[in-house]
Amino acid sequence: MLILITNDDGIYAPGLKALSKVLAQIGKVAVVAPEKERSAIGHGITMHKPLRATAVPWEGPVEMALAINGTPADCVKLALDTLLDEEPALVVSGINLGGNLGTDVLYSGTVSGAIEGCINGRPSLAVSLAGEGPLDFSFAAAFTGRLVTAIIDRSLPEGTLLNVNIPYLPEGDIQGIAITRLGRRRYLNTVTRRLDPRGRAYYWLAGEVADLDQEADTDIGALGRGLISLTPLQLDLTNYAFQKELASYLPFLWPGQGKR
Amino acid sequence: MLILITNDDGIYAPGLKALSKVLAQIGKVAVVAPEKERSAIGHGITMHKPLRATAVPWEGPVEMALAINGTPADCVKLALDTLLDEEPALVVSGINLGGNLGTDVLYSGTVSGAIEGCINGRPSLAVSLAGEGPLDFSFAAAFTGRLVTAIIDRSLPEGTLLNVNIPYLPEGDIQGIAITRLGRRRYLNTVTRRLDPRGRAYYWLAGEVADLDQEADTDIGALGRGLISLTPLQLDLTNYAFQKELASYLPFLWPGQGKR
Repeated sequence: MLILITNDDGIYAPGLKALSKVLAQIGKVAVVAPEKERSAIGHGITMHKPLRATAVPWEGPVEMALAINGTPADCVKLALDTLLDEEPALVVSGINLGGNLGTDVLYSGTVSGAIEGCINGRPSLAVSLAGEGPLDFSFAAAFTGRLVTAIIDRSLPEGTLLNVNIPYLPEGDIQGIAITRLGRRRYLNTVTRRLDPRGRAYYWLAGEVADLDQEADTDIGALGRGLISLTPLQLDLTNYAFQKELASYLPFLWPGQGKR
Repeated sequence: MLILITNDDGIYAPGLKALSKVLAQIGKVAVVAPEKERSAIGHGITMHKPLRATAVPWEGPVEMALAINGTPADCVKLALDTLLDEEPALVVSGINLGGNLGTDVLYSGTVSGAIEGCINGRPSLAVSLAGEGPLDFSFAAAFTGRLVTAIIDRSLPEGTLLNVNIPYLPEGDIQGIAITRLGRRRYLNTVTRRLDPRGRAYYWLAGEVADLDQEADTDIGALGRGLISLTPLQLDLTNYAFQKELASYLPFLWPGQGKR
């Protein structure tokens, strides 16, 4: 059984190494990851330049370890279509350094790797370690190993991926697991304006996180309570509940038509 | 009343010009768009380099026309946070040359511009002209004008944006409007492998579209029937239906815990 792993922190990131190590105890592992950090690239794919796959040295048993000059979605596309000799049982993206919570998943390279796996019909998950401190992925990796075993056993519905966030706490302080919904997250003061030496303005995107949704059933709320958050995400973004009301706009838009 | 417009084909694209022209009859228009084409970048934001806003000449009455060295999401973030003097009533992204249908919306720069508007609490829509032919945005622009008037009048629910695809047909051949769900779309043979003059492999991402979902209630199915497709999209990707089943994995993952 083959497991494809990728990330958006780049192929040399310690979270990817920790992931490969624990998953090698469960199955064969193929590492196909960006050659450098690709955070906040969203679900980008590279169509305007050729991609290269370069073998890199890897500590521990893997089928392959390939660095790609592209995004996490590129890595998964390339691996599934061309680089792998067999269909992987699972696609795992991570372990990201830093949480991927709430609305931020729309910007997340980590999550986009799992989305691409899901689009291609593979059970897929994105795993992130939420918090700061000295780098220690050991608990997060061990938990991911248990989760991967459960998903191989029970699978995931088609078109659904799992977004996993693990609090960066000593193992004994972790309160358990919560099944969550995606919270809403917004940033305040996202832009810093500066002047260059010639007096021309330039802008940095940054900003303080303004967590809007601290309720206990959200991923943001769960992490705040010391819980591991598991959020099932779907590829279908349709707002079905609003379809009927939207239909009431039609007569104005196309007089004489009530068609849907 | 101010309307912010952006796109992913770049500030010099004819679809953006056609959009500004029709919306200038409804309100004040601010154009903040990428300096070059940014297709298929997904919902990327630029955090690792400074952004610049450069005024460009514009034909017709606009409040500003600024080219940004970034993505559609960057443009909307920068405009809402810093560049605009007032809150826009609406964010419109487009008119894209080529459809943004089904699962492809996850890759779409056009849709990401509207997503960013929606994240920031503004009624937002993405508009695409689906098809090929000599460039003529006149019907698509006129329809978008009517739609914008309707949305200013009736608004959109929070966290919901509208994805609009207009078939590239003579006006008399358009069959009406359909309220749709997002179809599923997958590509076949996404990767082409070639050898460079030194015998090393490189890869192009491309591939033939394999439309999986031609049913009449999908956006793909509507376009195939000559209808304009309006798909309400939501930012909340949570698969609520699967939460309960996922909770049944917990005892295995965290023995002795049924917490959620």
